[in-house]
Amino acid sequence: MAQYSAVLDGVFVALGDPTRRAVIRRLGRGPASVGELARDAPMTLPSFMKHVRVLESNDLIRTEKSGRVRTCVLNRERLALVEDWLAEQRRIWLDRTDRLERFVTTNDQENP
Amino acid sequence: MAQYSAVLDGVFVALGDPTRRAVIRRLGRGPASVGELARDAPMTLPSFMKHVRVLESNDLIRTEKSGRVRTCVLNRERLALVEDWLAEQRRIWLDRTDRLERFVTTNDQENP
Repeated sequence: MAQYSAVLDGVFVALGDPTRRAVIRRLGRGPASVGELARDAPMTLPSFMKHVRVLESNDLIRTEKSGRVRTCVLNRERLALVEDWLAEQRRIWLDRTDRLERFVTTNDQENP
Repeated sequence: MAQYSAVLDGVFVALGDPTRRAVIRRLGRGPASVGELARDAPMTLPSFMKHVRVLESNDLIRTEKSGRVRTCVLNRERLALVEDWLAEQRRIWLDRTDRLERFVTTNDQENP
């Protein structure tokens, strides 16, 4: 549980940056090389590489080097963690709404 | 667009902390005072207040002071931003799957 929480911390913080979200979005369309990805980013290659490493260390993307080209692939399962967390929050709200509804219905019946 | 991106940055970073996620989860069940929320957090009140302020400055929660009690309320709309971003990524993946499927189908027809 503590480990799951630490993974979520890293994933959320990794997503809290426009360059990294742009990489995620681009990789949603399919794998791309670091060179291709860097072309769209308004920064130097070393700065861009730092973002790639943050995404990779949080397992949001995987990279593989073949010759001089490093190819990046999206790991959708990591984003599913965020979806699961949001779904959990929604369940909590719905439970609350159900409880409120039962409360109102019970009170209506008791005080018609 | 740049403003939306900056808002997302803040929301994602704010969610990248277990104490802040615990506050969001608790407030999903209904409003609570800072005192109540702090009771569950393994830290001093000043440290906890910093987390409350991060959530408030990113509009994930709203707080109101009445006498000596500050009550916190969840702002679900901010979490909807994260849901929207995730939904956008899913659309991109689905488009890609559709394109791949059309490509495979077309090739099957051309090379039966």
